[in-house]
Amino acid sequence: MNPRREFLKCFGLVAGGTCVSFDYSSLHAVNYRQQSRGKKGGMVLRFEPYDLQLRHVFTIASGSRTITPVMLTSITWEDEVGYGEASMPPYLGESHTTAHDFLSKVDLSQFSSPFLVEDILHYIEGIAPGNYAAKASVDIALHDLAGKLMQQPWHRIWGLNPEHAPESSYTIGLDIPEVVRKKTEEASSFKILKVKLGGGNDREMIEAVRSVTRVPLGVDVNQGWKDRIQALEMIHWLHEQGVVYIEQPMPRTAVDDIARITVDSPIPVIADEAVQVPSDVNKVQGVYSGINIKLMKCGGLRAAYIMAGMARALGMKVMIGCMTETSCAVTAAAQLSPLADWADLDGNLLISNDVFEGVKISDGKVIIPDLPGIGVRKIRS
Amino acid sequence: MNPRREFLKCFGLVAGGTCVSFDYSSLHAVNYRQQSRGKKGGMVLRFEPYDLQLRHVFTIASGSRTITPVMLTSITWEDEVGYGEASMPPYLGESHTTAHDFLSKVDLSQFSSPFLVEDILHYIEGIAPGNYAAKASVDIALHDLAGKLMQQPWHRIWGLNPEHAPESSYTIGLDIPEVVRKKTEEASSFKILKVKLGGGNDREMIEAVRSVTRVPLGVDVNQGWKDRIQALEMIHWLHEQGVVYIEQPMPRTAVDDIARITVDSPIPVIADEAVQVPSDVNKVQGVYSGINIKLMKCGGLRAAYIMAGMARALGMKVMIGCMTETSCAVTAAAQLSPLADWADLDGNLLISNDVFEGVKISDGKVIIPDLPGIGVRKIRS
Repeated sequence: MNPRREFLKCFGLVAGGTCVSFDYSSLHAVNYRQQSRGKKGGMVLRFEPYDLQLRHVFTIASGSRTITPVMLTSITWEDEVGYGEASMPPYLGESHTTAHDFLSKVDLSQFSSPFLVEDILHYIEGIAPGNYAAKASVDIALHDLAGKLMQQPWHRIWGLNPEHAPESSYTIGLDIPEVVRKKTEEASSFKILKVKLGGGNDREMIEAVRSVTRVPLGVDVNQGWKDRIQALEMIHWLHEQGVVYIEQPMPRTAVDDIARITVDSPIPVIADEAVQVPSDVNKVQGVYSGINIKLMKCGGLRAAYIMAGMARALGMKVMIGCMTETSCAVTAAAQLSPLADWADLDGNLLISNDVFEGVKISDGKVIIPDLPGIGVRKIRS
Repeated sequence: MNPRREFLKCFGLVAGGTCVSFDYSSLHAVNYRQQSRGKKGGMVLRFEPYDLQLRHVFTIASGSRTITPVMLTSITWEDEVGYGEASMPPYLGESHTTAHDFLSKVDLSQFSSPFLVEDILHYIEGIAPGNYAAKASVDIALHDLAGKLMQQPWHRIWGLNPEHAPESSYTIGLDIPEVVRKKTEEASSFKILKVKLGGGNDREMIEAVRSVTRVPLGVDVNQGWKDRIQALEMIHWLHEQGVVYIEQPMPRTAVDDIARITVDSPIPVIADEAVQVPSDVNKVQGVYSGINIKLMKCGGLRAAYIMAGMARALGMKVMIGCMTETSCAVTAAAQLSPLADWADLDGNLLISNDVFEGVKISDGKVIIPDLPGIGVRKIRS
């Protein structure tokens, strides 16, 4: 289905339940394609709401959905355009409406050059607290633009070797064994899978996966376990099943429990919900073994690069993750992946209406495109 | 005096005391201009010892000297050359000999591109522990080369606004009041001065400076004070004298004393000797208010950029400092200065035989050149 038509349809069908993240009260303010203020010749930010259609119903410990709302952004300057994206899974609190409200306040015409990334992101940060996906959509577009102006992909600007990009995991969501087996079979090209747990059928999930494949597994509990002793027992069992890391086993507030789990765990314990921005990294040192960095959590590539550097300086593992996103944001994250121990960059593979072409997974490994900027080409306008 | 001739002269005059940092036993190994192994067409590292002549006898709490030994490096690749430098004040333990030994082991021919900065620096790090100035000389040359290949200065690659470069301080070393007054008069173009204390004549030093100028002062004790109560009394007095920060008031090992000083101090307390590399930054959080980042301590620009990001994420102040250096290493550090609260980038101004032209101080402010790479031009071969 044409996603624009899908979006327009939402105007009249909110009560029908298709537009899960949309707030009708402010629809009058959302024009189809918004353009921020901008002097002639200066930078112009554009943004456009879009609904990602998920290939499968996506279920994690906190719920199920079939659509992820995103905001596609671009920044034009002279003859160049940089692309960005905000992905807004409903449980994180951002939506088309909040992103529209935030991005409408952005006026890039006051900046003389897209290379003033530090100033621009400082200004963006000051517009409103939170809104990290919306902020990331500006950061990513700005990096794409600056990289194109330098005629270099960001992995090269950062001095990273694309050959060191890790294998990416493919995510198997919570489901009944039959569906889990089917999804695992479909993911046979991946050399590592990430299995969502915490839905009450943990052993069943793992056994269903293991009935199909012997590849290493990561496990993401999304804060779903409540008891430390049981969590640790399960982790030992998972370790025996070939699980190589466990993500966010208990609620982020259970700091003492998680710290004890990390001490006793035979596999690294990774913080996801517990770590968002650079100032969180040192707080989870000594509690977790590593951090999962996502552009939509931290506000973009600049913060993500600093977080990776901090984590490595503190002796922590680094995972680069994503939301369900187009190839735009996933490819931007892939530029950083040579700094990561694990990549979980499957968000673009989980959707059926991608707008960009960029990062590929070949024989399980992340292949970062050798194109300037974040490395994407737009394939639908 | 021709510095090459000065260096050659040292071969025969070690006993005369001119070559303070030179170890005669390994002189046979130091050829005048060394060249690392390198395949034809690959990267070639060259290095050359050089003695910086100081304009004034330089005295800090740990001693006096008139020369600083440096190693000038270059990395050539295809038609481009990147410049670097190791500055080795004797009290830090590196010398022409140690740098020669270290750099002789570096073989860059195994790397296919100068953009593989992460791989190359990982390899450099693995050659031997320590040797941070020697490591910085490779890191700086590599950044200069990569920046030139991208045709951009590093402040722009990092997205920094050169207009936000701070004013640089000029350092007034320990001396008798008459000399302090004379040096302060000579430094009248600076909008902030950094006064070395800890030599037993602290009030005399400050009063001599204050008899000439009312500009804000920074103070660097270089671990020179031994008593916390007296230190704090002095800091309060210094605050009344217009001192805006105090650097390393007590030995780095006096962690509890310094933490208490920081709590009670009316001005920020900055770590210098107590912080060297990125993994030290979180260790000094809660002990000091900020950190002094120097390329020769941390091993170069990549580590320095991460340290600045970490410090800001941890809510700490950032100072960018230097050793007595040519304009090569000082200009490289200046590229980072828009991230700093204070810059202390006077190392090239303290010498009489600079080999490069780069950063300028205009009306007290750091002016970062708009040249690609680290932004220098060689003015003596």
